[in-house]
Amino acid sequence: MDIKEKSLQLHQEWNGKIEIKSKVKVQSKSDLALVYTPGVAESCMAIKEDPTLVYQLTSKNNLVAVISDGTAVLGLGDIGPLAALPVMEGKCVLFKEFAGINAIPIVLNTKDAKEIIETIERIAPTFGGINLEDISAPRCFEIEEELKKRLSIPVFHDDQHGTAIACYAALKNALRLVKKNIKSVQIVINGAGSAGVAIAKLLLEIGAKNLIICDKQGILFGGDPNLNPFQKELAEKTNPTGCKGTLLEALEGADVFIGVSAGNIVSEAMIRSMNSDAIVFAMANPTPEISREKAIHAGARVYGAGLSNEPNQINNALVFPGIFKGALETRVSNITMEMKIAAATAISDIISDAELHEQHIIPDIFDSRVTEAIVKAIKTLAK
Amino acid sequence: MDIKEKSLQLHQEWNGKIEIKSKVKVQSKSDLALVYTPGVAESCMAIKEDPTLVYQLTSKNNLVAVISDGTAVLGLGDIGPLAALPVMEGKCVLFKEFAGINAIPIVLNTKDAKEIIETIERIAPTFGGINLEDISAPRCFEIEEELKKRLSIPVFHDDQHGTAIACYAALKNALRLVKKNIKSVQIVINGAGSAGVAIAKLLLEIGAKNLIICDKQGILFGGDPNLNPFQKELAEKTNPTGCKGTLLEALEGADVFIGVSAGNIVSEAMIRSMNSDAIVFAMANPTPEISREKAIHAGARVYGAGLSNEPNQINNALVFPGIFKGALETRVSNITMEMKIAAATAISDIISDAELHEQHIIPDIFDSRVTEAIVKAIKTLAK
Repeated sequence: MDIKEKSLQLHQEWNGKIEIKSKVKVQSKSDLALVYTPGVAESCMAIKEDPTLVYQLTSKNNLVAVISDGTAVLGLGDIGPLAALPVMEGKCVLFKEFAGINAIPIVLNTKDAKEIIETIERIAPTFGGINLEDISAPRCFEIEEELKKRLSIPVFHDDQHGTAIACYAALKNALRLVKKNIKSVQIVINGAGSAGVAIAKLLLEIGAKNLIICDKQGILFGGDPNLNPFQKELAEKTNPTGCKGTLLEALEGADVFIGVSAGNIVSEAMIRSMNSDAIVFAMANPTPEISREKAIHAGARVYGAGLSNEPNQINNALVFPGIFKGALETRVSNITMEMKIAAATAISDIISDAELHEQHIIPDIFDSRVTEAIVKAIKTLAK
Repeated sequence: MDIKEKSLQLHQEWNGKIEIKSKVKVQSKSDLALVYTPGVAESCMAIKEDPTLVYQLTSKNNLVAVISDGTAVLGLGDIGPLAALPVMEGKCVLFKEFAGINAIPIVLNTKDAKEIIETIERIAPTFGGINLEDISAPRCFEIEEELKKRLSIPVFHDDQHGTAIACYAALKNALRLVKKNIKSVQIVINGAGSAGVAIAKLLLEIGAKNLIICDKQGILFGGDPNLNPFQKELAEKTNPTGCKGTLLEALEGADVFIGVSAGNIVSEAMIRSMNSDAIVFAMANPTPEISREKAIHAGARVYGAGLSNEPNQINNALVFPGIFKGALETRVSNITMEMKIAAATAISDIISDAELHEQHIIPDIFDSRVTEAIVKAIKTLAK
């Protein structure tokens, strides 16, 4: 049985991958009077007096909503809220297994950005944090930006920032390995969706100067009338020479390729045209932009992908458990750019110079040091 | 330490009464590939093909949202969403402990009926059922009615129907005991809020003819300009002689008093004015309309209350676990009036003629037969 069949069969057996557990037993009327009425009224009134007590007296302190409208689910596209539910539940499983965080899926039957914002704002009092998931670009940018303004709990669109943090952590170590500097390397990002935009913003923030972003229509340049406002903003900050053309042209002489686009769109010839010691991150799911074998054969020195059957797995699963654990434990109202950079640095620093090699630029997802390192980094900043 | 202090202290220790549990372990990359990407995509696509599979492949089949805007919490009134959270979590504990149902609190930071309806409609794909809780009247009627129209999953405002079902179950047995008929007894309901309106509707449905509803302003009568539309509708269907006056006047010669109002508002003299074999349900929380001692002293034959330290506890906790378990297992889209009546009958039928006496007209909350009896009743109707 292949992995797809086996997964489907297991999902049928599981009949839901998460459940709610009561932390207290109710076996007598005196239990009931403590857990529920009349005893519970005392906690209600305490919170009414001092709303911050909600973090002590309820589950809010460790409860994250994993929210999606089902418009950009895995590589499957706009499959709707019901069909998105298995992924959101899977994410909740990872929250619990990797960081001990209680997470619950909420799938929405609206695709309207304004309605999504309103809905999340209205249910927010329940939660300690909001993980936006698999919401298509460019709506995802607007939704996250607006919610960050409106809510006092952290809002994190994992497809953007989780991916960007993992990518920068891997890139930092890859550059350490090939002894190149982020400020001077030529970086090409292919895919100007949620992940691509977030990666570009993060790399600009940490000092990348020579950054080119491509999308289906080719290289993004300032003044291109076909861009959405988020791409437009980026086009003006990247592509310093204002070059136009295709991905093929962009890659000539480039040091780094970061793919967050679609399977099999990069050829060996394109890799061959890159600079020596080329770094290739082919992060498309489930099929990378170019396979490890082909990329290495064509001369890439470092290769990373999003898939779990590869070394150098660059995946947001490495990031979000620690990010949320840190944010919940420090009760920050916002996950700032500083925290994202600190998280990426914490991940890359786990790999010592002695451990660093071409097939080990980023820790394994199951490396328990990762979550704790991110939590520590956030705590330092939140002080 | 009294119950209030002890409950508050326990709430601090619990730090949240519920948690999310993962039903699957993720300890290796092959686990990850089955639980999450790429394997999970197969379940997503299966649901996209056939949306009913969401009940097999996700937790939706057994997941209830306990939703409140915090406007009518216990006897505490409008304390807001955060302060309502301990009660909603408590309810989720009872769902799990009494019926094995996964329930999650959702508290809303809006009191606008239209916004509440919209919000619940948008998050509904996540859940197998919606338990509305502690939403003040008359908005609760409008919200529930509209959601029932819009959603294909059951919506149940427990403060209304849970209370009404428990009340009718108790009344049915009390009438059996005193050998009076629902069609001929004179019934007075005090309190025309969510519970009072629902009890009245249910009693009318099962054949009560001589029913008077009182609220703060006195007896409800057809044509009273001060009523909300829901009270108005009821005023026209009750009070057949069109009498006006106070609760005091309404109770003269009455067979049954049902209080869902406020503590200590019924005197011994009022009970004395009732018919012989008077039935008194003083269900206000946390202080009943009249105490057991006083009511019995004044000549009431049967006394029931909402509190857990009394015999004859008439409480919705007896009802909602079975109602939702039955609704989820049969996947009905609506909890109908027929089902509510069947549930009440199932509860009262648990007590045999031999067991029936003045202090035992309704089963104990911890009687495990109750939930199963309700489930069976709903299954019979859902066929």
